Amino acid sequence: MAVNLPYPRGIKPVAGVAIGVASSGVKGDAADVALFSFAPEVHIAGVYTQSAFKAAPVILAKEKQRQSNTWVINSGNANAATGEPGLADAEAICASAALALNAIGQTASLATVQPFSTGVIGQRLNVPAYQAAVEQAASGLAADNWLAAAEAIMTTDTQPKAVTENVTVNGHTFTITGIAKGAGMIKPNMATMLAFMACDAGIAPALLEATLSEISETSFNRISIDGDTSTNDCFMLAATAQVGSMQFETASQEGFAELKYCLQTVAERLAQAIVRDGEGATKFVTVRVTGGLSSAECLRVAYTVAESPLVKTALFASDANWGRFCMAIGRAGVEDLDPSTVSLRLNEVVVAESGLVSDTYTEAAGSAALAGDEVVVEIGLGRGAITEIVWTTDLSYDYIKINAEYRT
Amino acid sequence: MAVNLPYPRGIKPVAGVAIGVASSGVKGDAADVALFSFAPEVHIAGVYTQSAFKAAPVILAKEKQRQSNTWVINSGNANAATGEPGLADAEAICASAALALNAIGQTASLATVQPFSTGVIGQRLNVPAYQAAVEQAASGLAADNWLAAAEAIMTTDTQPKAVTENVTVNGHTFTITGIAKGAGMIKPNMATMLAFMACDAGIAPALLEATLSEISETSFNRISIDGDTSTNDCFMLAATAQVGSMQFETASQEGFAELKYCLQTVAERLAQAIVRDGEGATKFVTVRVTGGLSSAECLRVAYTVAESPLVKTALFASDANWGRFCMAIGRAGVEDLDPSTVSLRLNEVVVAESGLVSDTYTEAAGSAALAGDEVVVEIGLGRGAITEIVWTTDLSYDYIKINAEYRT
Repeated sequence: MAVNLPYPRGIKPVAGVAIGVASSGVKGDAADVALFSFAPEVHIAGVYTQSAFKAAPVILAKEKQRQSNTWVINSGNANAATGEPGLADAEAICASAALALNAIGQTASLATVQPFSTGVIGQRLNVPAYQAAVEQAASGLAADNWLAAAEAIMTTDTQPKAVTENVTVNGHTFTITGIAKGAGMIKPNMATMLAFMACDAGIAPALLEATLSEISETSFNRISIDGDTSTNDCFMLAATAQVGSMQFETASQEGFAELKYCLQTVAERLAQAIVRDGEGATKFVTVRVTGGLSSAECLRVAYTVAESPLVKTALFASDANWGRFCMAIGRAGVEDLDPSTVSLRLNEVVVAESGLVSDTYTEAAGSAALAGDEVVVEIGLGRGAITEIVWTTDLSYDYIKINAEYRT
Repeated sequence: MAVNLPYPRGIKPVAGVAIGVASSGVKGDAADVALFSFAPEVHIAGVYTQSAFKAAPVILAKEKQRQSNTWVINSGNANAATGEPGLADAEAICASAALALNAIGQTASLATVQPFSTGVIGQRLNVPAYQAAVEQAASGLAADNWLAAAEAIMTTDTQPKAVTENVTVNGHTFTITGIAKGAGMIKPNMATMLAFMACDAGIAPALLEATLSEISETSFNRISIDGDTSTNDCFMLAATAQVGSMQFETASQEGFAELKYCLQTVAERLAQAIVRDGEGATKFVTVRVTGGLSSAECLRVAYTVAESPLVKTALFASDANWGRFCMAIGRAGVEDLDPSTVSLRLNEVVVAESGLVSDTYTEAAGSAALAGDEVVVEIGLGRGAITEIVWTTDLSYDYIKINAEYRT
C-alpha cells in the first residue's frame, strides 16, 4: 500500500553497532523487541517528543542520553499514560537488558540503557514477556540485523524502513545506516515516529547534538500525515568512532560538511519513507511554498495546506481544486497576504496565477497532473525569496478504515 | 444523515423583513437565490471571514454594512478567488436587486445591497442567470419565506437550518428568527458558513455590533468540523425596530440582557445545527474542557481534541481510546501541563483520572458510552477554574466520500 517505497536493499552494518531482535509474543510470533549495543567509544544524541504526555520511556531515554551505550526498543505497547508504574516497568526492562549484556561480557548498567516504546497508549507493559525477549535478543547480537530491527519496531507500518549511505571524507569511508517506523500520527516536533541512525565516525557530543538538531529540522520535522503528534517520538543518532583517525569536534572541520550532508540525506529518506507509508496514503505529496518573507510564514502555509482535510480529500480524488487551496492558504494566518500575488502549480501544470485560475489552465490538465501518485504542490506567495518544503499524503477511505479499526 | 437535527418547524416571520427566493437554474430547478428586504428603520451588523482570500461578496458586504437594508444571497458559486471581475459580477447582481426593489416601490441602491455567496470557489458567476433569479425573487417578497430561504442557501447541507425564539421584555414580545448553512469547512473565525438572523427590536448600531460579536464568539466560533475555514463566511444580524417603544442603546438597559440571551440561544442552536449536519457526521460531539487556567488554554485543548483525525476516527468507531485523547491533549501546547492532573469522562463514564486509566473503567463501559450519537467529551485539566465548550463531529467514511466527490 505504500507509495513508491521499495523494500529496503543493501542495508549495511555500521562498525561498533550490534543488534539483536526477538519476539515477546505480544504481537504473535513477530519480532517486537530490538536491542542495540554500541562500542564503548560511542556518543549518542536524541530529539524527543514535545508532548506534555511524554511516555515513560521517553522521560527515561532523555535522562540517560549522556551515558547511553544501549537502546532497547519494543513495539506493540507505547508504555504511555502509565504514570509511575510505567516508569518502573521501563526500568525493569532496561535492567534485564543490562544484565543480559553483562552476561555476554558487555559493559552496560541501568544508567546506560535507553528504552523506547511504540504501540497502544494507556496500557501497562507485559514486563516479563518483554524481559524474556530482551534476553533472547542479547543472545543473538549481530552486526547485520538492521533490517530485522526495522521490522521489529513496526506497528501499523506496511513495510520496514531502512536506509544506508556511504561517504568518503579525508580518505576514510564512513557508513551511515538508519531505520524508522511511522505510519499515523506523523507531524513535526516528533510524532509517533521512532528513528534510529548510526554512523561509524567519531563526533564529539556537542557537535553531534547540534548536527542532529539541524538534520531533524529538515527531515522528520518537515513531514505531516494527519497533524497528530504522539507521546513517544524519538529520533536518535549514534556516532561510534570506529572509522577515521580522529573525532570531529567542530562543524567547520574539514570533511564534516560532507559527512553532515550524508547524515541529512539518510534522515530525509527515512522521513520520506514514513510519509510514503502513511496510513491509507495513495499519493506522496511534496508541498513547496516559495516567495515567502520568512521561513515561518512559508511553513505556516505549507502545513495548513498539507493538513487541510479538504485539500487532502481533493488530492485523493485527483481533483485540482483551486478553491480548496485558496481556502487553506487564506486561513494560514500570513499577515497582509495579498491574494493577487499568489500562484499554484501542480506538478508541471499552472493552476492559478495572480490569485486567479490561469488562462491556460484546463480541468483535464489539472486532473492529469494529479493522476499519478507523486504530486508536487507549488504555492508561490509572491512577496519574498524564502522557500520551504513539507511532505505529506492524501486522505483516503483507508485512513478512516485503519484508524477506526486499529487496536493491537 | 444529520445527527438528531429535526426539520425546522414553527419558524416565524420577523416584522420588517420580507424575503423572496428563486432559482437561477445553476442548481437545476432548486431555489438558489434569496433576497432579504428590510424596513427602513433597520440596523445591520456582520462578522466576516478572516481569510486572506476573502471572496468578492465578503469584501463588498463589509463595505456596505453601515447603509445596508438588503441582503442578496446565492448558493452554487462562491464568487471567491475571482479577483476584480468577481467584484464587478457581485455588484452587477446587487444592482439588479436594487432596481427590482425600486420597481416595486422599495428604497434600495447599489450602496444598500449586501451580497453573499457560497459554493464552488474560483469560478466566475453566471451573472445573467442570477440577475434573472434576483428579479424573480423580488417579485415574490413575503414575510413567511424564512424556511424557503434556508433551503435556497444550502450547498452540501442535507437539510435546511432555521430557528425561531420569542422573548417578552418590558411588555413587548420580540421575535428572533435565523437561518444558516454549513456542512464542511466549519471552524472558528467564520468558516464556510452563512448565517442570517433578524429580530424586530430596535438596537442602536454600536450595541448591535458589540452584541453580534459577543454572541458569535460563543456560537459560530465554537464549532469545528474539519478545521478548514472558508473564503465566504458571514454571520449577519438585522434589528428592524418594528416592535417595542424604543431603541436599545446600551447593554445595561432594562430588558436587554433577556433579549441578548435569546439572540444567543438562536445563534447557538443554528451553530449546533451546522455541526449536526456536518459532512459525514454520525455523532454530535460536545468537547468540554474544565479546570483550565485560562479560556485560551481550554480552547486550545478543546480544538486540538475536536480536530484530531485520530480522536475523530476513534469516536466514529465508538472506541473510547484514552491514548488518542492523551496524544491530542499532550500536543495542545498548554504550558507546564501536568499529565497527572488530567481526567477524561465520556458521557457518564470516567475513562481516566490523574492521568491514568481509571480503576473503575472497563472497555465495555467505554464502548457503551460512545454507542449513541450524542457524546460529551469532558476533559479536566485540574489546574484552574475555567471551562470552555466546543462542538464537533466524528470523522467517517462519508466525510471522505462527500469531499472526494463534491463538485457542484
